[in-house]
Amino acid sequence: MVVKGLEGVVATQSSISSIIDDTLTYVGYGIDELAQFCSFEEVVYLLWHQRLPNKQELEEIRKELALNASIPSNIIHYLKGIPLNKINPMAVVRTGVSLFSFYDKDADSLDKEALYVKSLKVQAKISTLVAMFSRLRKGLDPIAPRKDLGFAANFLYMLNGRVPNEIEEEAFNKALVLHADHELNASTFTARVCVGTLSDVYSGMTAAIGALKGPLHGGANENVMKMLMEIGELDNVESYILEKLEKKEKIMGFGHRVYQQGDPRTKHLKDMSRRLCDITGNQKWYEMSVKVEELLAEKKKNLPPNVDFYSATVYHSLGIDSDLFTPIFAVARTSGWLAHIMEQYENNRLIRPRADYTGPDKQVYVPLEQRD
Amino acid sequence: MVVKGLEGVVATQSSISSIIDDTLTYVGYGIDELAQFCSFEEVVYLLWHQRLPNKQELEEIRKELALNASIPSNIIHYLKGIPLNKINPMAVVRTGVSLFSFYDKDADSLDKEALYVKSLKVQAKISTLVAMFSRLRKGLDPIAPRKDLGFAANFLYMLNGRVPNEIEEEAFNKALVLHADHELNASTFTARVCVGTLSDVYSGMTAAIGALKGPLHGGANENVMKMLMEIGELDNVESYILEKLEKKEKIMGFGHRVYQQGDPRTKHLKDMSRRLCDITGNQKWYEMSVKVEELLAEKKKNLPPNVDFYSATVYHSLGIDSDLFTPIFAVARTSGWLAHIMEQYENNRLIRPRADYTGPDKQVYVPLEQRD
Repeated sequence: MVVKGLEGVVATQSSISSIIDDTLTYVGYGIDELAQFCSFEEVVYLLWHQRLPNKQELEEIRKELALNASIPSNIIHYLKGIPLNKINPMAVVRTGVSLFSFYDKDADSLDKEALYVKSLKVQAKISTLVAMFSRLRKGLDPIAPRKDLGFAANFLYMLNGRVPNEIEEEAFNKALVLHADHELNASTFTARVCVGTLSDVYSGMTAAIGALKGPLHGGANENVMKMLMEIGELDNVESYILEKLEKKEKIMGFGHRVYQQGDPRTKHLKDMSRRLCDITGNQKWYEMSVKVEELLAEKKKNLPPNVDFYSATVYHSLGIDSDLFTPIFAVARTSGWLAHIMEQYENNRLIRPRADYTGPDKQVYVPLEQRD
Repeated sequence: MVVKGLEGVVATQSSISSIIDDTLTYVGYGIDELAQFCSFEEVVYLLWHQRLPNKQELEEIRKELALNASIPSNIIHYLKGIPLNKINPMAVVRTGVSLFSFYDKDADSLDKEALYVKSLKVQAKISTLVAMFSRLRKGLDPIAPRKDLGFAANFLYMLNGRVPNEIEEEAFNKALVLHADHELNASTFTARVCVGTLSDVYSGMTAAIGALKGPLHGGANENVMKMLMEIGELDNVESYILEKLEKKEKIMGFGHRVYQQGDPRTKHLKDMSRRLCDITGNQKWYEMSVKVEELLAEKKKNLPPNVDFYSATVYHSLGIDSDLFTPIFAVARTSGWLAHIMEQYENNRLIRPRADYTGPDKQVYVPLEQRD
């Protein structure tokens, strides 16, 4: 029997994150506390070591991430020579990470220590890559990361050339923490299937980035912002949404295959969206979002907003271009992908299901000359 | 219950190829007839159109493949500037195909016609890329494809700068045909999981190439050749193999999860291996292979040679470097990957299984300052 989309199939054991009764945990820690109290670097450490770091360990991983953040000049030079503003940002991230392997002499090693060093490199460089890409395509010079800033602040600094204020840093850090891992989502599963052949980390990462690029996965938050922009004003929300519902069209940022009652990540992003819109003085994005949410709660049962919905206005309020939302998702999810890739190696088995053949029965071969 | 490696799970319907009772068919045509009578281009057409082409259709797809075979000069320039002989060839193929998307304005289109044009481009260019890479890393100039040669002959011509003789062309064409598709193998499944998010063709292809790179999948034929070289001489076969068996070490190129009795592709490659070794006058590789096969048949039940085993000596006899075996596998399998990617789009559902959480139970969050 075909299990379409492998819905409900348990494909592997994993001790990284869990979704049980609509609650999300990373290594047993509830997402609410992690989002409130942890820096992204703490979460990276948690996902890779299966425990939270102490102060010294946190200092170390921060230092290591900062030390590994630079991009080979050869790659920068190449990117400068092509029309970047015509290329899908996720294609640049996918290609960039694939290129990183050219400059890593241990690219193919599955040795445990080498894997850890590679993970640090990839996590650090993908952040620089996304910020650099954004600047290069605008004709601006890349900005080198600062060793005194944390991961979240550094990203915004490399993107905008300005050290973010406290609330901006808090919002972006929370978004990174909330997107860090999510059990066997489609891109994580892609990475695990890929490295189940004992292929290398860069192959697994490239595969995952490619999967996240899809509009049914990471591409969703960008489409939420597109929708809000199409709506334009608070007064247009009702007619826009009702028309969509009437036409049975999909509303971006709502519903999730795994969560039945609601996505536990949403409330944190909703709160940050409100606070950021308060600062920027441009509250309409938050207000429109709330109105969309209320309308859907009224009209559709069991279609609560998911992580993508309020992350759109959070990123937008931070001045980030919509088509960078998915690359930023990739920066955050890299921590989870790498944890899953390492876990797959630990106890590997080739992932190779079967297909149910529905094509023609045995056909008689007709030589080329006799074909119509 | 966890189904490790998804063994036996039926993940999708497919009408492209079937493995039933140890028989392999492409769209219902037995692999024996296709290997004997068809050019690789015919098989590409078959996999993409679900029927064999007539003469005119075959001419057309040949012409289209030839027209699309050139690589953007920007990519050539970049590859010339890096130390290619220190980089894993499959990392170059993965990155190269990812880069192709930069130069395709329809890279992200899922429109049926655009998908077909993209498939032609990818199939044509990946062949040129592999041949070009092989020349560049030896300090040789790339050779442009010739419009009067078929796909198999063109590859060998671009690789060696010499039009192959008839038997060389026949052998290489057969190898391409036999590697073109293979139901839901790990790389094809990786591609389908990736594009199940409605991501683009280049993402699916990059993911698949990354998966094929793994030693449990495409990397196996290269390891067969390594083993034969380690053995060195016919007289060493017995002691080498017996020692491996005693130590319970894996012998490369034997056994297959799906085939119980034997891999139907092996006999064609065994035959070509014999004929090629006859021409080159260096029969020892064939003789050693036969000896390894005989010994294993005697010592191990149900561990017949698979497609990788004799393809190693076929490629070696064609003068191809061992580390190009997997890239050549990728050139052939591209036809199947693209067929499966197109089929996935036709009737898509996000592929998102679940994990069985085995990590710590709910943990109490301890603030950073209080951690040991």
